Amino acid sequence: MANTDCVSVRVFSLNCWGIRYLSKLCSQRYQMIGEMLCKEEHDIVLLQEVWSEKDYLYLKKKLASSHPHSHYFKSGVIGSGLAIFSRHRIHDTFLYRYSLNGYPYMAHHGDWFGGKAVGMAIINLGGLTANIYVTHLHAEYCREKDTYLAHRVVQAWELQQFIRHTSAGADVVVVGGDLNMHPQDLGCRLLRSYTGLRDSYLETAKFDGCENGITLIADNPFINKKELVPFEKGIRIDYILFKGTSKTDIYCNFMSTTKGSVPDHPFPYSDHEALTAQLQLKSSVPTEAESSKQSKTEDSPAGKLAELVDIVTEARTEVKVGLHCAERMRYTAARTGVMGLALLFLELAIAAVPCFALGAEQPFPRTSFYLLAALCFAILLSTSLLYIFYTMELKSLQGAEDQMRLAVGGLQEKLRGFPLAQPHKVTQRPPEGEKLNALDPEE
Amino acid sequence: MANTDCVSVRVFSLNCWGIRYLSKLCSQRYQMIGEMLCKEEHDIVLLQEVWSEKDYLYLKKKLASSHPHSHYFKSGVIGSGLAIFSRHRIHDTFLYRYSLNGYPYMAHHGDWFGGKAVGMAIINLGGLTANIYVTHLHAEYCREKDTYLAHRVVQAWELQQFIRHTSAGADVVVVGGDLNMHPQDLGCRLLRSYTGLRDSYLETAKFDGCENGITLIADNPFINKKELVPFEKGIRIDYILFKGTSKTDIYCNFMSTTKGSVPDHPFPYSDHEALTAQLQLKSSVPTEAESSKQSKTEDSPAGKLAELVDIVTEARTEVKVGLHCAERMRYTAARTGVMGLALLFLELAIAAVPCFALGAEQPFPRTSFYLLAALCFAILLSTSLLYIFYTMELKSLQGAEDQMRLAVGGLQEKLRGFPLAQPHKVTQRPPEGEKLNALDPEE
Repeated sequence: MANTDCVSVRVFSLNCWGIRYLSKLCSQRYQMIGEMLCKEEHDIVLLQEVWSEKDYLYLKKKLASSHPHSHYFKSGVIGSGLAIFSRHRIHDTFLYRYSLNGYPYMAHHGDWFGGKAVGMAIINLGGLTANIYVTHLHAEYCREKDTYLAHRVVQAWELQQFIRHTSAGADVVVVGGDLNMHPQDLGCRLLRSYTGLRDSYLETAKFDGCENGITLIADNPFINKKELVPFEKGIRIDYILFKGTSKTDIYCNFMSTTKGSVPDHPFPYSDHEALTAQLQLKSSVPTEAESSKQSKTEDSPAGKLAELVDIVTEARTEVKVGLHCAERMRYTAARTGVMGLALLFLELAIAAVPCFALGAEQPFPRTSFYLLAALCFAILLSTSLLYIFYTMELKSLQGAEDQMRLAVGGLQEKLRGFPLAQPHKVTQRPPEGEKLNALDPEE
Repeated sequence: MANTDCVSVRVFSLNCWGIRYLSKLCSQRYQMIGEMLCKEEHDIVLLQEVWSEKDYLYLKKKLASSHPHSHYFKSGVIGSGLAIFSRHRIHDTFLYRYSLNGYPYMAHHGDWFGGKAVGMAIINLGGLTANIYVTHLHAEYCREKDTYLAHRVVQAWELQQFIRHTSAGADVVVVGGDLNMHPQDLGCRLLRSYTGLRDSYLETAKFDGCENGITLIADNPFINKKELVPFEKGIRIDYILFKGTSKTDIYCNFMSTTKGSVPDHPFPYSDHEALTAQLQLKSSVPTEAESSKQSKTEDSPAGKLAELVDIVTEARTEVKVGLHCAERMRYTAARTGVMGLALLFLELAIAAVPCFALGAEQPFPRTSFYLLAALCFAILLSTSLLYIFYTMELKSLQGAEDQMRLAVGGLQEKLRGFPLAQPHKVTQRPPEGEKLNALDPEE
């Protein structure tokens, strides 16, 4: 390849933990973040959990000279919490809202109200078109019994779809954010394998930061150490990922994370550590031979394809488990609703039909009657809402499962085109019209 | 250009009006549709309003030999109603759910429950990568007082974003569906101008069908003629749009619509007319000069750019009107909720505090007390839900407005690069941090 150009780009990512009145020292931390960003002058700043637009506007004002271009992605009830600040002009933006994002009645977890999404901004970096993505996936509240696993897997699935389908015209792709997944978690593998994105922590030539690149560390004073068990030192769930194309070479020559404390300040920027990656972009004119072998997944070697088939199949299994749960929940909601209705009819019958009534010596118990009727109505209303919600959840899960089945079929088709027998176990593609059967052990 | 190849592709689009038990002669019509599709063997069939998965599966079975590849897009409570059948293998699919889609309490209109979306399928047509889109936008129930206008404009905005951002890797783009907009409606102009998509009815070399290409016609027995007033003969709201790239030439050499009746059958396929477009694809090797001038919007002449600025500005105004309405609705919900709360407190005070109580000679009116309390709770609950819903609506409208402002700014920037003074009125880009002010006459 004949390298024609080299651009150095510094990318920053931080989950700001910015829940007004609930997150500790919120405004003081935003002040610190603003000052640091002003001084550091990263090319691209990707922030998550900027829940309040006021805080975004505060940062926007503060960074007006260092980062004149910015975008705040709005979604859900509270917002997506995603913001991007850039030294370079933002040419276009696009937001994709994940179809699944927890449950509205789990208000203490709050994810549903946040309207989790992935935001995209198109930026020109030294003549190269860069697609920059910022995202924040559903939190993992309990690793042993993760009720949101299916939701997070579907989010990872939609994230990889969104990146793959929107980045065809880009020379460079950069993804930053809090994925709420460990590096070897299913969703992370799915994202990296399908898109070909590379992890800046694993790829960097030089690293300065916490051991193993962890970004949620036990030493952080805002962290409840109990929640990290059994990962005593901490976990790595925030990432900066990148990839080039056949037209662009990209590599990471330095990466750093904060280490739980900030010099000259009594507390850190957030409960997460901040990430900074220095990326080198080399625009290159591909030779005839190189331009004919595209850098698409379609043309990956058989081993990688087979691995991808396995990962998508694993994701499909998780989605099926989620489907099974959602079906059960919807059934429970329907059954409870029917019971509420039956109770209401019984009550009305007792009130209306004399032969069912209580003994004449007792007066009609008006208070109990109205309280019970109100209870019945409350049950009916809440179970109806839950039924609608679970139906929507089911549709989204089924949709993802359908797409995954199609993807596995397509990948296997490609795999069959390879001359060598692949060493991986490969799933059989079921007939397309087949009824979805949760937990069906077909793989 | 040196033409190397020519492929003929027949695309079909129909809104099936498939509401089980509500749409007239639903199963008979599906049978007719299935038989016709089987016989006609279009390359690509794009269906809308296939609300029941059972009907999709019926068609899938019926078309198993003529159209072995298909996909049903799932979303919302009922589904998106979108289905695609293809003679060629579907390599990948992706669904984008519109952020706005009417109101859940307008259950008789039903759009919210449908989960309107745009579905994409990637198909290989004679060596060319074709991105096929199928969509169905929110219905227009009253043209004079269209309460859903802002929602439909935002849907059109998101549709053009989705198509633009996902089609960079495609050689051919085909969009089919019921846009629920007349050809000169804002959303339609926005979609065509921004994406460069061409209307097969306007572009076709030969046309056979209803006068003016109308697809909702007064002669259709399923149509209530009153709803068409003042368009006595009918309206054109269904489309097949297409575009090529610098690598592909595309044109439409024949287009047809059904004309309200089907030979040998007593009734038509649907309340909409079906569209068929025969497209000619010519893969071409661009010359040096041609490949340098890309076929992107960025490189359109100044006149087109200025027109696009005007259209986006007009869309922004509509979204602002929508914002204003949503703000008012949210305010009303909040005020009603506060009144419900006040009433509840008053009632509790009357019950608890003797001095507020009714004269001692009257017994405590238990029945009224409980009924009133239940009413208060019902008001509180419904206004809370409405408040949450309107907040989500506001976020989506604000998000679209932000993106439109950014787009106008970017387009104007490009326009300034042109040497000639543009004849169009051009809006001023407001300071980015500015508070969103609905109906602000800044343009």
